[in-house]
Amino acid sequence: MIEPYDHEYFMKKALQEAQTALDRGEIPVGAVIVTQNRIIAKGHNLTETLTDVTAHAEMQAITAGASFLGGKYLKDCTLYVTLEPCQMCAGALYWSQISNIVYGASDEHRGYLKMGTQLHPKTKVISGILEEECSAIINEFFARRRSLN
Amino acid sequence: MIEPYDHEYFMKKALQEAQTALDRGEIPVGAVIVTQNRIIAKGHNLTETLTDVTAHAEMQAITAGASFLGGKYLKDCTLYVTLEPCQMCAGALYWSQISNIVYGASDEHRGYLKMGTQLHPKTKVISGILEEECSAIINEFFARRRSLN
Repeated sequence: MIEPYDHEYFMKKALQEAQTALDRGEIPVGAVIVTQNRIIAKGHNLTETLTDVTAHAEMQAITAGASFLGGKYLKDCTLYVTLEPCQMCAGALYWSQISNIVYGASDEHRGYLKMGTQLHPKTKVISGILEEECSAIINEFFARRRSLN
Repeated sequence: MIEPYDHEYFMKKALQEAQTALDRGEIPVGAVIVTQNRIIAKGHNLTETLTDVTAHAEMQAITAGASFLGGKYLKDCTLYVTLEPCQMCAGALYWSQISNIVYGASDEHRGYLKMGTQLHPKTKVISGILEEECSAIINEFFARRRSLN
């Protein structure tokens, strides 16, 4: 039997969110939260639109996911996000006790691994899913921005 | 000349926010953001009310402060918060490039110092302002909660 709901399937949904951010002139990062193969929350970076540094894709998705579930904790949930979370988002994920984090591209400068942010002991991490696509959308954004300056 | 607007003055305002949180049954943490001796944003912990782990006092205040200023960065601003920020809030403060953080009580377990979260190089920190009052309100909350269980 073919399993349609694999990590790539949901990362493509996160990439669609990143594309929505790009279309609004935002740094293109997207996220979805999944439980039992169902997307319960989506988010994309809105820091410019909302003039709010806290409006990262993951933060929107965590808030929306908890609202959907009616509880603070994202137990049995998986966050798919196109870019490795930063300190703030990893810190929020720590509080959420989320079960799994799956990310696409690494962030060598501001990612939680480089910064040493601690995740919750219950949380498992998978990285590198659709890494090329997830990196490409960000790299193209910054290349275009540099060429405009 | 007496200077009425000192660190204790604004920490008392943050403590009033913590009291508002306590009155709603929330872990009592409060915050205000000040620029040029003027409070431009307030926040108190609302994680239970909003069923949202991201709804810490500092996060509310950062979002409100940036909204007031009409820009993402909290330049020339000081955050007063009753409890040492956690990883998530310190990560948000990093992105905000806030000039000063003044906190009351330390958080030996989940505070950003213990967790190793990095603040922005531009940010200066002062701790221990009204430490006793800031610790007392939290300690009483947890003592009461334990006695009810």
